[in-house]
Amino acid sequence: MTLTRKTTNLVPFVSVDNMMKLVNQVGAEPFMMAIADHIEEDFRRWPIFDKRARIASHSSDGAIELMPTSDGVAYSFKYVNGHPKNTKSGLQTVTAFGVLSDVDTGYPALITEMTILTALRTGAMSALAAKYLAPKSASVMAIIGNGAQSEFQVLAFRAIAGIDTVRLFDIDPEASRRCAANLAGAGLNAVICKTSQDAVEGAHIITTATADKQYATILTDNMIGEGVHINAVGGDCPGKTELHRDILLRSDIFVEFPPQTRIEGEIQQLAPDHPVTELWRVMNGEKPGRTSSSQITLFDSVGFAIEDFSALRYLSKLLETEPFYENLDMLADPDEPRDLFGMLLRAKGSANAA
Amino acid sequence: MTLTRKTTNLVPFVSVDNMMKLVNQVGAEPFMMAIADHIEEDFRRWPIFDKRARIASHSSDGAIELMPTSDGVAYSFKYVNGHPKNTKSGLQTVTAFGVLSDVDTGYPALITEMTILTALRTGAMSALAAKYLAPKSASVMAIIGNGAQSEFQVLAFRAIAGIDTVRLFDIDPEASRRCAANLAGAGLNAVICKTSQDAVEGAHIITTATADKQYATILTDNMIGEGVHINAVGGDCPGKTELHRDILLRSDIFVEFPPQTRIEGEIQQLAPDHPVTELWRVMNGEKPGRTSSSQITLFDSVGFAIEDFSALRYLSKLLETEPFYENLDMLADPDEPRDLFGMLLRAKGSANAA
Repeated sequence: MTLTRKTTNLVPFVSVDNMMKLVNQVGAEPFMMAIADHIEEDFRRWPIFDKRARIASHSSDGAIELMPTSDGVAYSFKYVNGHPKNTKSGLQTVTAFGVLSDVDTGYPALITEMTILTALRTGAMSALAAKYLAPKSASVMAIIGNGAQSEFQVLAFRAIAGIDTVRLFDIDPEASRRCAANLAGAGLNAVICKTSQDAVEGAHIITTATADKQYATILTDNMIGEGVHINAVGGDCPGKTELHRDILLRSDIFVEFPPQTRIEGEIQQLAPDHPVTELWRVMNGEKPGRTSSSQITLFDSVGFAIEDFSALRYLSKLLETEPFYENLDMLADPDEPRDLFGMLLRAKGSANAA
Repeated sequence: MTLTRKTTNLVPFVSVDNMMKLVNQVGAEPFMMAIADHIEEDFRRWPIFDKRARIASHSSDGAIELMPTSDGVAYSFKYVNGHPKNTKSGLQTVTAFGVLSDVDTGYPALITEMTILTALRTGAMSALAAKYLAPKSASVMAIIGNGAQSEFQVLAFRAIAGIDTVRLFDIDPEASRRCAANLAGAGLNAVICKTSQDAVEGAHIITTATADKQYATILTDNMIGEGVHINAVGGDCPGKTELHRDILLRSDIFVEFPPQTRIEGEIQQLAPDHPVTELWRVMNGEKPGRTSSSQITLFDSVGFAIEDFSALRYLSKLLETEPFYENLDMLADPDEPRDLFGMLLRAKGSANAA
C-alpha cells in the first residue's frame, strides 16, 4: 500500500457528506464487497499485525473506545463510542472517526468520519464470515434488531453471501417498517415479522443486531434448529450479550481476536478456555469453517481493529481516483523542523503586518 | 466544565493556523500559565481520573502513541508520534492532534492540532513541577538540547518559576543561536555555551530536552552539584534516556504516573521498586517537594495524558470567548438516529435531483 502525502502539513479529511457521496458513487454493495476483499487479504496475513483488545473507557451510560493496529507499514486507529441511550435524545448510539498513518514518519495520512464506514465494514465482515460458515445455498436471513446496522447487514449478505430473503423483527415495529422501506428498491424479499420466533422460521442465517447494554436473551435455545449460522453482531461489550448460553454450548464458535472477544462477546458467558476458532485461521486454510449441514455455526462478532484498518486501506486507495476529501491544516510544519516557536513568532509578525 | 455542542454533526476543529492565532492573541506565557493552572487543578484531583500508560506502537524509526484519560465528565485522547529521524527530511520529530469528548454522549466536542499545544503543555508542566521542586529563588536555568521544545521551556520557566537567565547548549550550535534569537525580545539573558559542562555552570535548574532515541548520557555525575533541580524532558520512551544512572541514585525523583515512567523515563535504568514520589501527591500536600537547599531534585518527565486533558480543557474554555475554530462535518447525524442507511439513500436522491 502507498500512503502518498503531497504536503507535510495537510491531512486529507473525508467528511460525512463526502463519505455519502463516495458510497453512493461506488454503490453500497460494491463498496462492502471491496471492504470484504481487503479484510480477507488482511486476515490472511493476521500474524504480522500489531494487535490488542480495544482500549475502552466505560461510564454508566456507555463506552468510548480506541482501536489501534498496524501492519508495520501503515497504522490505523478508530475512535468509537457506544451509548444506547443516545437515540432517545436524537443522537447516534455509535459514532466513529478514524485515522490512517504512515508508520515510517508517524504522520497521519488520512482522517475520516467512520460512523458510516463502520456500518459498511461491519456488514462486510459479517457477510465475509458467513461465506465461510453459513450453510451452502443459504438464501433466507432473519435479522433481529432493525436499527442503524440492519440495511448494511442485509445488503452485504445479499452481495457476498447470496441472500435473497430477509425476515425482519424489532421490538419497535416502526424500525422494521423503515428497514423494509429502505430496502424496497434493492430487489430483495423483505418480510416483516411479529415476533423473533416468527422471524427465525425457515432462516438459514440469523443475525442479531440489538443495542441494549445488558445481558439480554434475544435468541433462546428452542429457536435454533440444526444447520443454522448465527451472526451475533449486537453483543459487543462487557455485560452486553444477546444469546442464551445453551445456544453457545451447541455451537461451533468463530471469533475475531480472542483476548477481546472473551471480554466483550457472547462467550463472556462461557469458561475462559471454552474452545473457539479464530476466523483468520479459517480464511488462510489452517482450520475448517463449516464441516457439516447439521452443525450450528456462530460468528461471535465484536468488531476488531484490523477490520477498520482494511476499510481505511480501501478508502485510501479509493480517494486516489475519487477525490472526495478536503485538506485539513492539522500538522504544524515550520520551514525548519526544529523551529516550532519561530513559526509562532513569524505568524505573529505577519498578523501585525497585515 | 461544560462541553456545549451547538449542533450534533459538527465538531469544532482548531487548525494549526488558528492555534497560532490563539496563542499569539493570548500570549505564549499567559497561555502556558493558564495551562499550568489547569494541570495543577487536575493533578489535585488525580484519583478520580481513569489512568493508563500510553498505548504505543513501536517501529524501528519511532513510535505512534495514543494517550487517553477521563475524569468521568470529559474524555480526552492525544495521538502523538515520535520519530527523531524526521527532521532529516524536513518533518517534525513530534506531531500531535487531540480530541476532547463528552462522556455522557460519547460525542467528540473538540478536535485540535496538538503539536503546538503539546509544546505549550510540556513547558507548563515542567515549570509547574519546578515551582514545587526547584531551589528557592532559582534564577538561572541551563537547557541542553535547543530544539523545538526549548523556547517553550524557557518562557514557561520565566513565567511560572522566576528564571531570568538561560544557558543554552546544543550539539548543533545553530540550534542554540536560533533559540537565543527567538528569545531576543523576551527580556531574558540568554547565554550560548560551547559545552554542556559550561552550560550547567552556576545553573539552579538544568533542563535536558534532547531527541536521540537511544541511551545517551547528556549529564554525567560530576556535572551535578548540590541543590540543583533537574528537569529531564527528553528521555520519554523505552531505550531513550539522558542522565547517567549515578545522578539518579543521588536524586529525589518525582514522576507523573509511575506505571508509564518506569517504562519510559530515566528510571527505566533503576530497579522497578526504586522509590519515587508522584508529583500529584506533592501538589495536593500529601508529600513534601524540596525539603533542603542541598537536595538534588529530579523531575523525570515523560508527559502524561492528564496534562493533555488539562490543556484541552483550557482550550475548550478559551474557544468560548476566542472562536478561533472551524466546524468539521465529522459525525453522521440522520434525522432519525436509527436511520443511518436512509440518510445515505436521501443523499443519493438529492444528488440525482440536483
